[in-house]
Amino acid sequence: MNEIDRLTEYFREFPGIGPRQAKRFVYFLLRKDSGYIKGMTDSISNLKKYIKNCPSCFRFFLEKNFTDPNHSLCSICSDKNRDAELLMVTAKDSDMDVIEKSHSYNGLYFILGANIQILEKNPEHKVRLSELVNKIENSKLKEVIISMSANTEGEHTIDIIRGKIAPISLKNGFKITVLGRGLSTGAELEYSDSETIKEALKHRG
Amino acid sequence: MNEIDRLTEYFREFPGIGPRQAKRFVYFLLRKDSGYIKGMTDSISNLKKYIKNCPSCFRFFLEKNFTDPNHSLCSICSDKNRDAELLMVTAKDSDMDVIEKSHSYNGLYFILGANIQILEKNPEHKVRLSELVNKIENSKLKEVIISMSANTEGEHTIDIIRGKIAPISLKNGFKITVLGRGLSTGAELEYSDSETIKEALKHRG
Amino acid sequence: MNEIDRLTEYFREFPGIGPRQAKRFVYFLLRKDSGYIKGMTDSISNLKKYIKNCPSCFRFFLEKNFTDPNHSLCSICSDKNRDAELLMVTAKDSDMDVIEKSHSYNGLYFILGANIQILEKNPEHKVRLSELVNKIENSKLKEVIISMSANTEGEHTIDIIRGKIAPISLKNGFKITVLGRGLSTGAELEYSDSETIKEALKHRG
Amino acid sequence: MNEIDRLTEYFREFPGIGPRQAKRFVYFLLRKDSGYIKGMTDSISNLKKYIKNCPSCFRFFLEKNFTDPNHSLCSICSDKNRDAELLMVTAKDSDMDVIEKSHSYNGLYFILGANIQILEKNPEHKVRLSELVNKIENSKLKEVIISMSANTEGEHTIDIIRGKIAPISLKNGFKITVLGRGLSTGAELEYSDSETIKEALKHRG
Repeated sequence: MNEIDRLTEYFREFPGIGPRQAKRFVYFLLRKDSGYIKGMTDSISNLKKYIKNCPSCFRFFLEKNFTDPNHSLCSICSDKNRDAELLMVTAKDSDMDVIEKSHSYNGLYFILGANIQILEKNPEHKVRLSELVNKIENSKLKEVIISMSANTEGEHTIDIIRGKIAPISLKNGFKITVLGRGLSTGAELEYSDSETIKEALKHRG
Repeated sequence: MNEIDRLTEYFREFPGIGPRQAKRFVYFLLRKDSGYIKGMTDSISNLKKYIKNCPSCFRFFLEKNFTDPNHSLCSICSDKNRDAELLMVTAKDSDMDVIEKSHSYNGLYFILGANIQILEKNPEHKVRLSELVNKIENSKLKEVIISMSANTEGEHTIDIIRGKIAPISLKNGFKITVLGRGLSTGAELEYSDSETIKEALKHRG
Repeated sequence: MNEIDRLTEYFREFPGIGPRQAKRFVYFLLRKDSGYIKGMTDSISNLKKYIKNCPSCFRFFLEKNFTDPNHSLCSICSDKNRDAELLMVTAKDSDMDVIEKSHSYNGLYFILGANIQILEKNPEHKVRLSELVNKIENSKLKEVIISMSANTEGEHTIDIIRGKIAPISLKNGFKITVLGRGLSTGAELEYSDSETIKEALKHRG
Repeated sequence: MNEIDRLTEYFREFPGIGPRQAKRFVYFLLRKDSGYIKGMTDSISNLKKYIKNCPSCFRFFLEKNFTDPNHSLCSICSDKNRDAELLMVTAKDSDMDVIEKSHSYNGLYFILGANIQILEKNPEHKVRLSELVNKIENSKLKEVIISMSANTEGEHTIDIIRGKIAPISLKNGFKITVLGRGLSTGAELEYSDSETIKEALKHRG
């Protein structure tokens, strides 16, 4: 396998990229000057060096203080103004990003790592279910918000998480909630399904 | 203009139909036998004869009793089991259809006729705003639900209706509500806008 | 079944129309005034009255002379300036329309009626194969151009027609041709298939 | 700007990649292990080291023999079985790739580097026009095939190249040809434009 094919294979693993676009990426890089190539490869290598997983919420963040890397928390987990009794579980960093951008939540987060696939036998091996249980057992919480997409995978992930943390909720007395359903921005009534309409009516106000 | 072009023009007025598809409809009809043609044109002519606008909610319905056509109400308006103190305003018949199909509403309806366009100077001439005001003034209501799509036109229509009926609401003491916003079925968190997320969080449960 | 459902069924047979759009057509008609309804149903009924199938090429055309309807030909078949030794076979009227619009053909036409489906056992019952054979046997031709789409159905239709008319071609000495293949307007080289490129290279000039 | 944003900017320059997908690429890399990261960045760096521009046709190729890098030709240019009197000009490497995959051409190539934009004042600064003229002047050719996409940019590029090489063609006596036009695989007759139909008719056979 030559270098063009090898790099094409790397790009094919990128999310949403097929063989043709992967190859176009390679040809694109072939035409860029060495400044761009050096800058980009340095940036990729730096990612692993400067970006850490927060040991508390597991989101990726830029490590600023390298004196004690193992114990430093991300900017959200170390923010004293946030409500530490509120924990939101999201599947991915990008889900957490949109919640932050909405400026409508002031609690802490926990990043599961991915949605749980329907047929997954051992979700603990794929996502941070045991880390979540561990964190919830050792926190003083009044509510855990399971924030997942309103699709089959999201519903399944909610079910699995709820099953895991419901016993702790009973013992420790926090609420378990999920995001409200209704009309998303842009949704046309005529094309909305019955479930969405039922929720939109229930939450009318 | 020959007959093919003339009928093409009629079909071009159909919702969502461009010139090419309009012409394909004509060629389609040219290939159908006279039984289909006669059946279809009869059906179109019958629409106006047997289908009436309900004088109370203004939805289209099949007139069954022709002895006293002017006073008969549609099956929903004449249904004694429905809660007559609850009135839902929708823009179109098809919006009302999806609400009915969701089996989550048991009050009465009022069909405005269309959404109100942003730049419309005289909405009263285009939609049934005065009929709505008249109906609300003469009903004993505990709530009016303005059920519109979650887009710019829908929001504008809500604003106009609210402006018209707010004074009556104050006087007669009924609530004015709108459909709840949140995640529609299928919505992915990552691609949801801040407004949707804010509402989904507000209505979590 | 009420009149709304009945008409919806008629519209569902229209090419490319699903149940939801069929219903929107009915609601659209319910809102139109009786002038539009009368004009449209008259136009549909007139289609069958004034539009005839040309007895020679089988295309639909507007009958102008009603004194002898059975023997009148369409404007193309009766045009003495067209080359009667050239016959083009197309699947549908709309295919013939685009050929005419290109102003690049001056022979006569024959409308087969439809493409021949791959698994069709008796194509003679669905399209005008016997009429085509009959016409070709009774014409003095130098070329028959089989003009079909460049897809599986089109190729299959070409194969069937060729099988039927090849013996007559041998006997009467006319050529059988098909449309040239190559880059369609707008085609990008990078996304073209090998067959298209091979033909484009063969026909370079 | 932190490392995530910096790398996002690099990915945004990739062909067809918007801000959201660029960010997803970064998060994707954050989740990969260091083996993948090292392999990929090495592969990107190697691209520039092992992949050369062929000094004759300018396509990218894997340099196998490093003893005399300046004079080595790519596998196509050094293949004695290919017809050196036939030269095909393509805009990009990927265009040349699809021609090779069609197994319908056995001459040599020249990669221009890109299409020439309509408003480009100095195409010589953007693409290899002078290199092309130079190569053609110093070759013994019987035909130059200008292989461009069948769109506005492609047509413009053909016009510019033709203008540059027509005088040499007159002097040296080679033909200048372009790819044939007609129905691309999959093209439906009904939706084909007049230019495509005209060419398809001209090249019927």
